[in-house]
Amino acid sequence: MAGTDAAARAAAEAEALRPGPVTVLVAPQMGENIGAAARAMWNFGLSRLRLVAPRDGWPNPAAVAMASGAGRVLDDARVFDDTEAAIADLTTVYATTVRPRELTKRVLTPEAAMREAAARIAGGERVGVLYGRERTGLENEDVVRASAIVTVPVNPGFGSLNLAQCVLLMAYEWRRTHDATPPELLATGRSEVAAAEDVARMVAHLTGELDRAGFFWPEHKRPSMVANLENLFRRAPLTDQDVRTLRGVIRALAEGPRERSRPEG
Amino acid sequence: MAGTDAAARAAAEAEALRPGPVTVLVAPQMGENIGAAARAMWNFGLSRLRLVAPRDGWPNPAAVAMASGAGRVLDDARVFDDTEAAIADLTTVYATTVRPRELTKRVLTPEAAMREAAARIAGGERVGVLYGRERTGLENEDVVRASAIVTVPVNPGFGSLNLAQCVLLMAYEWRRTHDATPPELLATGRSEVAAAEDVARMVAHLTGELDRAGFFWPEHKRPSMVANLENLFRRAPLTDQDVRTLRGVIRALAEGPRERSRPEG
Repeated sequence: MAGTDAAARAAAEAEALRPGPVTVLVAPQMGENIGAAARAMWNFGLSRLRLVAPRDGWPNPAAVAMASGAGRVLDDARVFDDTEAAIADLTTVYATTVRPRELTKRVLTPEAAMREAAARIAGGERVGVLYGRERTGLENEDVVRASAIVTVPVNPGFGSLNLAQCVLLMAYEWRRTHDATPPELLATGRSEVAAAEDVARMVAHLTGELDRAGFFWPEHKRPSMVANLENLFRRAPLTDQDVRTLRGVIRALAEGPRERSRPEG
Repeated sequence: MAGTDAAARAAAEAEALRPGPVTVLVAPQMGENIGAAARAMWNFGLSRLRLVAPRDGWPNPAAVAMASGAGRVLDDARVFDDTEAAIADLTTVYATTVRPRELTKRVLTPEAAMREAAARIAGGERVGVLYGRERTGLENEDVVRASAIVTVPVNPGFGSLNLAQCVLLMAYEWRRTHDATPPELLATGRSEVAAAEDVARMVAHLTGELDRAGFFWPEHKRPSMVANLENLFRRAPLTDQDVRTLRGVIRALAEGPRERSRPEG
């Protein structure tokens, strides 16, 4: 990570100041899972955590130990006696559950839910996501309270996400709604991508030396052999440094194993 | 999950038979993390695991304990002495790493990488994803071997995904490349969404009773009051069962607290 620790902390805080959905853990049992959920949230810029009747009370040292680095999420966590109180101020609530229920309710993928949440938050709504206790998940009465269900599309026959993993996937999808990372970019370190004319000159250098070495034979195949070589280098793509290195390689091979003064490249 | 355990197992196996990218864990240290990675894979239908020089040898009881339910992934895991051997048969390799490197290399998001992987696998290629050891990640020499880098876009200033979480996100994105789950659907349990005419009759029943009760006053506001009521019920949407329940509610309220024979709905 570039920059100082202080800069990194500032970036993390700035990310978390963006309004996002509230994470509501209903009756969580293990402090470790609360801590892991907090880390998962903080990884993707979520900071608002609410706990409904955590089994082992609050604060919980096991949560703090697991959350290292995301302690701020735990510090700001709010504790409620029941789900009704925890969601009282929210306008849209999603219930994460893998089980089909005997309820008429919209069922969304994590991506669709977080896109909808982003749109609603942008419109001034207050949004929350409910997660049930480990193993048993959300009670039906809590699912009823939600506006919609979110189900992670897992391998049918092996849906065994744990609490923190479920929070992680939702937080990941939340961040994807506003992430500006290009799907693909070419990292070039300290160098720049080479201009076409520099690649052309390098290829001309190479073919010239190969002509001298009698490489292109039979003669009528020369055009296609040159084309294939050039195509190989055009495909890479090459940086300025790559072009300089390759020119040094060509020179070294052409000159052979004799004493050379100051090899370039 | 509907169906028997055997049916669920068969579904999980069928999912895993789809060709997918190989998961290559380089120098993993904790057996627990290998087990958690196997579970993450199996959750999203990946089954091919390769281990490069696992610190504590192989097989590893701690991995088995953590993988419960995904033991098949561990049973089929292959162990190699070095990365070179582990990727020898692969044609495209992605290196997961959060650190910018002094390398010229494509950097993809997990989504872009898994879409590209799906296209290449469909074209007959063999694809793998490299994950580094806990804490230190991939060595530069392993990143060099990869065709491209995958970086999870985390909160700048707090990028602390653990090994299994990273595998989970990649496996999740892999499954998203071929998942047919609609982004949104309306689950209706055993009931059906009500036809428009049934809603219209219920609204007529309601407005009729409200007319009798003198609810619409002043008279000139009646049309807009009726429209708002109808709009409320059209928005829901209602199921057949909801419509029957509401008609029972209207009847009960209209008749008042007297002895009724066999309430319907």
